[in-house]
Amino acid sequence: MVIVVRADLGMGRGKAAAQVAHAAVAATLTAAGSPRLRAWLADGQPKVVLRVDSAAALGDVVARAVAHRLPVETIEDAGRTQLEPGTLTCAAIGPADDDAFEPVTGELRLY
Amino acid sequence: MVIVVRADLGMGRGKAAAQVAHAAVAATLTAAGSPRLRAWLADGQPKVVLRVDSAAALGDVVARAVAHRLPVETIEDAGRTQLEPGTLTCAAIGPADDDAFEPVTGELRLY
Repeated sequence: MVIVVRADLGMGRGKAAAQVAHAAVAATLTAAGSPRLRAWLADGQPKVVLRVDSAAALGDVVARAVAHRLPVETIEDAGRTQLEPGTLTCAAIGPADDDAFEPVTGELRLY
Repeated sequence: MVIVVRADLGMGRGKAAAQVAHAAVAATLTAAGSPRLRAWLADGQPKVVLRVDSAAALGDVVARAVAHRLPVETIEDAGRTQLEPGTLTCAAIGPADDDAFEPVTGELRLY
């Protein structure tokens, strides 16, 4: 699973961690019962957290994931604390085989 | 759900976010099919990320959670990158009602 986070929002580390966890839980629930979820869990549920620097860049990643038929879950913040309501903060892609991510997130940097 | 992270390990923000997500996913899977999971999801899967400053302090939190009969999932790092293998990095408590957390994590600070 890859989770892509917007680094331009200036989220604190706890806030960002919560958003990443929202995305990972959503992706897990969407994959419930699937072979790809079982394979990922058996592998120790590996996660890589990457960054983008704008909403547009996150949108591009989501579009590439959809084009490559990878499952995507996007997270909008409820806006109770640091951000405006409805702000897109991150997206989880997968679970999927490692090599499926390369054309979608291969050029992104670690968060 | 409350996730308690060790701030003394000096984890980078992406590393910490991945550990928090591991814990949240583990807690979600453990609660699969339960009324407490359904209630939490219906509420927008709220998460609070708190900090402790040692392995001993995290152990104390885990012990209090168990004493209060709250579900707990602890995460040990596989040690492939920043940490020694088997390092306890964080723990997820819940999902549970908001007021159940007070005696367990009420004195902890935000991560």
